[in-house]
Amino acid sequence: MATKNTDVKTDVDIAQAHTLAPITDIAAKAGITEDALIPYGKYMAKVDTGSLAHEPTGSVVLVTGVSPTPAGEGKSTVLIGLADALAKIGKRSAVALREPSLGPVMGIKGGAAGGGYAQVVPMENINLHFTGDFHAITAANNTLAALIDNHIHQGNALGIDPRRVTWARCLDVNDRSLRSVVTGLGAPADGTPMQAGFSITAASEVMAIVCLATDLADLKERLARITIGLNYDKVPVTAGDLGAQGAMAALLVDAIKPNLVQTLGGTPALVHGGPFANIAHGCNTITATRTAQRIADIVVTEAGFGSDLGAEKFFDIKARYAGLDVAGAVIVATIRSLKYNGGVAKDKLTEENVEALRRGVANLERHVDNVSKFGVSPVVALNLFTSDTDAEREFMRDWAEEHGVALAEVEAWAKGGDGAIDLANLVVDKLAQGSSHPLYDPAKGVERSIETIATEIYRAADVQYSNAALKDLQMLKDNGLDTLPVCISKTQYSFSDDPTALGAPEGHTLHVRSLIPRTGAGFVLALTGDVMTMPGLPKKPAAENIDVDANGVISGLF
Amino acid sequence: MATKNTDVKTDVDIAQAHTLAPITDIAAKAGITEDALIPYGKYMAKVDTGSLAHEPTGSVVLVTGVSPTPAGEGKSTVLIGLADALAKIGKRSAVALREPSLGPVMGIKGGAAGGGYAQVVPMENINLHFTGDFHAITAANNTLAALIDNHIHQGNALGIDPRRVTWARCLDVNDRSLRSVVTGLGAPADGTPMQAGFSITAASEVMAIVCLATDLADLKERLARITIGLNYDKVPVTAGDLGAQGAMAALLVDAIKPNLVQTLGGTPALVHGGPFANIAHGCNTITATRTAQRIADIVVTEAGFGSDLGAEKFFDIKARYAGLDVAGAVIVATIRSLKYNGGVAKDKLTEENVEALRRGVANLERHVDNVSKFGVSPVVALNLFTSDTDAEREFMRDWAEEHGVALAEVEAWAKGGDGAIDLANLVVDKLAQGSSHPLYDPAKGVERSIETIATEIYRAADVQYSNAALKDLQMLKDNGLDTLPVCISKTQYSFSDDPTALGAPEGHTLHVRSLIPRTGAGFVLALTGDVMTMPGLPKKPAAENIDVDANGVISGLF
Repeated sequence: MATKNTDVKTDVDIAQAHTLAPITDIAAKAGITEDALIPYGKYMAKVDTGSLAHEPTGSVVLVTGVSPTPAGEGKSTVLIGLADALAKIGKRSAVALREPSLGPVMGIKGGAAGGGYAQVVPMENINLHFTGDFHAITAANNTLAALIDNHIHQGNALGIDPRRVTWARCLDVNDRSLRSVVTGLGAPADGTPMQAGFSITAASEVMAIVCLATDLADLKERLARITIGLNYDKVPVTAGDLGAQGAMAALLVDAIKPNLVQTLGGTPALVHGGPFANIAHGCNTITATRTAQRIADIVVTEAGFGSDLGAEKFFDIKARYAGLDVAGAVIVATIRSLKYNGGVAKDKLTEENVEALRRGVANLERHVDNVSKFGVSPVVALNLFTSDTDAEREFMRDWAEEHGVALAEVEAWAKGGDGAIDLANLVVDKLAQGSSHPLYDPAKGVERSIETIATEIYRAADVQYSNAALKDLQMLKDNGLDTLPVCISKTQYSFSDDPTALGAPEGHTLHVRSLIPRTGAGFVLALTGDVMTMPGLPKKPAAENIDVDANGVISGLF
Repeated sequence: MATKNTDVKTDVDIAQAHTLAPITDIAAKAGITEDALIPYGKYMAKVDTGSLAHEPTGSVVLVTGVSPTPAGEGKSTVLIGLADALAKIGKRSAVALREPSLGPVMGIKGGAAGGGYAQVVPMENINLHFTGDFHAITAANNTLAALIDNHIHQGNALGIDPRRVTWARCLDVNDRSLRSVVTGLGAPADGTPMQAGFSITAASEVMAIVCLATDLADLKERLARITIGLNYDKVPVTAGDLGAQGAMAALLVDAIKPNLVQTLGGTPALVHGGPFANIAHGCNTITATRTAQRIADIVVTEAGFGSDLGAEKFFDIKARYAGLDVAGAVIVATIRSLKYNGGVAKDKLTEENVEALRRGVANLERHVDNVSKFGVSPVVALNLFTSDTDAEREFMRDWAEEHGVALAEVEAWAKGGDGAIDLANLVVDKLAQGSSHPLYDPAKGVERSIETIATEIYRAADVQYSNAALKDLQMLKDNGLDTLPVCISKTQYSFSDDPTALGAPEGHTLHVRSLIPRTGAGFVLALTGDVMTMPGLPKKPAAENIDVDANGVISGLF
């Protein structure tokens, strides 16, 4: 079994050695006419969805994973392999994925474009600027920030309280120094001193709005509804009050069009939008998923991290707003990550340890149970690595049989679609329409929604609110904003808000430290534990290894 | 004469009513093969210059202007009209222009894409994100900033003095609140508190580097040479010391390829790079000018603002580094702006006032004299407005004859190329090769270079350095950096550093407040007077008028 550990080729090597089909060919095969295609170079395009003929009738298969570990699970790799495998068994398939963020690309070795022989390409472009969506979102976000501060500087007719502006600037970079800043220092001509901060673009409300907007008119309405803070009477002020939505929408007019690329197997891939699933809602755009449903019978899409994060938000936020039915689900697991969840240290994961696997599989059981709560019976994709032993694989097969869980072994990294044929057949067998549903009814109030997610999905015993969060809650109630769905920002490493509590913890307390109305996106953002909306760089950033030669060939990306 | 004042159509109306040729047609006519073309939509492309066959032999005509006024001079409009007129009289012409910045687009009504029937199109794209060059520059700039602060946070092996980091972050937005900030507040995990600031992207050193780099290898070398600040021993630390140049170059690999668009007259236009000419060096990229020289016999290019700013920097920085010969020059003037320089108030400019014109023409004389100092004999383009009277026009013709200056009246806004035929014929008549040259020899030291520009071009009596600037000067000398060319950041409204001193002031003092080594760009940046590298928004920002309808049609841009 030649897999990631032994193969000397890097992802970028494999991608660069591949001969891509012109994007016009990929589009033509998918039934997208040249009229509907806006090319960005020869291998990428935006799709003008208004001119597509077919209705969005394809079945949606959601791919999620066990709780992520430093060992890596290969969720995107399995997803892309699955789509290529579906094509190989005669299905019209398409991929809907998020765009990678430059922050992690420059920070940690990794990305969101798959790996090995299961990648979306051209991977260098996708991992760097792609078609400029993140930059457009950054520009729209920061234009609003400039308009807010300028309004205060130029007389503050709206009476915005500079101490209560909640609109953060954003940048698509991992820069911890921007988490907490003071702006407007210097002379009076340099603005009003204010406590402020930057989020990473992936965590910005504009990103969420682009991902949840169904069309340009909806986008503009959502932008106008953004709450930027409170006035001196503690009444919310919106982007619409500042007249900012037109300019912001003009900056986003291309960004809301989905991007078409291809997998190494030649499957059309809609890669569009990129909110993180820990600090944001974690799903690609509604327009990309809908477009994929128009060009394929089976759409394979992801929600970031585990069932507690991306998948919960997929059902409770994205599917709710889009009216999406989920016909199937896949949970990606690896023996290494389950052993890690069973308490094995990072440097011992390649040693056989069935006992640790037995403890760690509780994490997978929890994710299976969670996905089932949304009305969908999941398939487990066991992503194989060379270090997996026969005994460990046998344990997993036995576990699946005992628990009545459908499980397929996958070798998508090494073999592309050929490594995911079993998984594809299982997924097709289990497709079921019309049974998926959200978990909670937002009309019962934000506290009830948080409590339901905390107890049902995170298996917490209770929820504690900080004093600041209690004040936020009162503000939401005072302004009729407490019946929006909730987007919980929580560590990806644990079901709890403590990143060190691995496996399947229960009976813990969820600590809510802040509640922020995201009235444009249409949810309340709940910050829990110590999670940050602006990551930092590690001691040795990946940026140091990235290079480009005199011919423009990029290296060191993965 | 139907000109800007009476025509009810806006620039965006005219541009949107125009049927554009596919960019592949524009490229084919210019001898650019489809292989060398990277499309961005149907009407914009990047050019892979490595695959162009012709040598850069076209003659370069530099367009500059009188000192700008609130009345507007229409420099880009005249430039584009001239290129279209050259085509009409049978010359193979091309345009090389800067890209507009989002900051002014959202701030003041205006842009850098021409106007009326002399525009580069698609103007909405060009004025908003275009092909993403500014965003790529912003990302590269801020990646370096994150790497600097992360290095300090993670142990500071290089001993960078946090008090002496001169590398600023940047954003393509007018946001005065970002001029002076404190970053790294919060907990120890949130970095080291530092005084910091943001420039507008147009003023960043990465912008200058992209504009001055001759190819990818040169780009990477320049990025590595960037000075980010000093260590505790007061020795300069570079981006190369941080290993940042590879990742930065990877982010800029597309940004250094010139963008091809078209004028309303169908002339190929290379629109690429966008440093402002007051707070930066003010010229489009060397690669764009060189590419234009490969596809045309006459290349019309601009340098921002008047001869004291963009033109001086064109000869002393850009032409010096590129080895460019300037074969002709045009100075754009309007009767309104000369009357303003002659002391007429903004709201009285439409009234006939030959006396004021007689006083204000001193400004034009100074610019004619300045351009001549670089070895080029300029042509004056008098850009007509409906308010210009016969007596005023006659005065200008008489003035030109008396002073032996070639002058042509232009109506490019209303008539496109047809309105600039006289100018085109004059420019062709006066083309002369091999006589252009820079003003000073940088080997004689930064002080001498500044003194030469101040006395010869600004007509100052002397130069005064602040105490901080004197310390900067000593640092430059201590580190062998005082023989680079100088880029003076100065108000565009006056030859002096006082924006209220109109006309042709002389005998004033130039106040240098800071000297910053831009070792990547290859110049020393001298900040004078009160000029800011981050603009602010006006009381009523243009952003409030910008909108987009449900079909994606953008309005309110101009």
